[in-house]
Amino acid sequence: MPAWVDGRPAEALSVRDRGLAYGDGLFETIAVRAGRPRLLARHLARLEEGTRRLRLPAPLDLVEQELLAFAAQLGEGVAKLMLTRGEGLRGYAAPADAQVRRILVGSPAPAYPAANFDEGIALFPCATRLAEQPLLAGLKHLNRLEQVLARSEWSDPAFAEGLMRDQGGRVVEGVFSNLFLVRGGELLTPALSRCGVAGVMRAELLEWAAGQGIATMIRDVAYDELLHADEVFLCNSLYGIWPVRRLEAHAWPVGAITRKLQAHFRERLDS
Amino acid sequence: MPAWVDGRPAEALSVRDRGLAYGDGLFETIAVRAGRPRLLARHLARLEEGTRRLRLPAPLDLVEQELLAFAAQLGEGVAKLMLTRGEGLRGYAAPADAQVRRILVGSPAPAYPAANFDEGIALFPCATRLAEQPLLAGLKHLNRLEQVLARSEWSDPAFAEGLMRDQGGRVVEGVFSNLFLVRGGELLTPALSRCGVAGVMRAELLEWAAGQGIATMIRDVAYDELLHADEVFLCNSLYGIWPVRRLEAHAWPVGAITRKLQAHFRERLDS
Repeated sequence: MPAWVDGRPAEALSVRDRGLAYGDGLFETIAVRAGRPRLLARHLARLEEGTRRLRLPAPLDLVEQELLAFAAQLGEGVAKLMLTRGEGLRGYAAPADAQVRRILVGSPAPAYPAANFDEGIALFPCATRLAEQPLLAGLKHLNRLEQVLARSEWSDPAFAEGLMRDQGGRVVEGVFSNLFLVRGGELLTPALSRCGVAGVMRAELLEWAAGQGIATMIRDVAYDELLHADEVFLCNSLYGIWPVRRLEAHAWPVGAITRKLQAHFRERLDS
Repeated sequence: MPAWVDGRPAEALSVRDRGLAYGDGLFETIAVRAGRPRLLARHLARLEEGTRRLRLPAPLDLVEQELLAFAAQLGEGVAKLMLTRGEGLRGYAAPADAQVRRILVGSPAPAYPAANFDEGIALFPCATRLAEQPLLAGLKHLNRLEQVLARSEWSDPAFAEGLMRDQGGRVVEGVFSNLFLVRGGELLTPALSRCGVAGVMRAELLEWAAGQGIATMIRDVAYDELLHADEVFLCNSLYGIWPVRRLEAHAWPVGAITRKLQAHFRERLDS
């Protein structure tokens, strides 16, 4: 699969890059179908917010051009886009002339079992709790050790995803997904002001649901509220929507709202 | 300056390395004098703890051999040692056959003003608060965006370091240093069970002070306790010990215990 650095085919990056040294950068994981990046505007919007909050002087027009050209070459699969603050001297202070590095890495489309989508999944209860850092919350930055630790907690393929909670015990998200609850016909998803990644599918889904007259709410969600939800599902931009059927002793059905959202977004993401 | 990857001269690393993708790894910043790494046993001990807690299957004997050979080639300066979980497929799950990558990057010894050591420094009050994550606290891992953000808060060279507090407002450390208070002839340094990096100089200093009959304490430290300390100083393994003279409206003298520790460790680190 192809890999580019700064717009040219390349498999390697300087060992002095601040992306490696400090995780000083951002990434996006983008579904590519028929040579085109899916949910492009959402990915670019999140990236723009990240560059602003991390003060990364990224040439976003160029990033978009390169992503489009890379996707055209990739055809089908996943384009992982990383932006780093480039090379630096030793030390946390960024060089005044920091040159943001643009990295694109291709990989095949993930081969998730169709049953995840059709029948729903079991959620592993991760013991790894997310730390609360408002300055980084919502961003898809390169500091992802918490997700690495959480994902290392289980290897049984019976669990397709894991549930992550914050230090206060509130439910936040999956390891690589966002989480939604349906209660009394309304959609509820955890606020991501202290921790978590604000996924592009989450944003897309919130907007579309609101347009369909489904009430949506973003706020803190207690563990107990999750257990008492009518429907629970996960989403991300690669697999779309998976119903959640089981977490420890708790079981949920696959409900009508989950099916409605699945149907709409399967069509949207496949087209 | 030289750079090695897996024991061989190399300037570049795969763009598929998990060190870049997730900050999935550890580092040590090691002073090298006359071709030898300083405080070697301490650096190796912290690295060993990190590999254990992150479950990084690192060949530590080989890491030590390569570090010694690298230091001999470098002569004088700083050896930055990074261990990453190596290349991976897309996704947080580590490959079963993960090969830990060993990276060494040389740089010149930092040129800090002599006045930092002789007269002491002013501390910048960073607004960036450290998140509380017990699973990572104490480790020198590659997720360092908080330090990047904190260090970006000031550019005035009148501030040689910045003070970092946790989300609860307790004082924790400097951006690239550990913090000590002297109160009534006793040494006090913040506990690092929720956040912070357990520095090798901090460990060295705690052990030596205790052996000298100076009482040492490791516990949570309130901001107010810092302001009322008799002496305050910072330490790390590159510069040794800097007295802290000023933080906002507060001023401290350079006290006798700080001077005693400086004298001892200057000799130890230079020899």
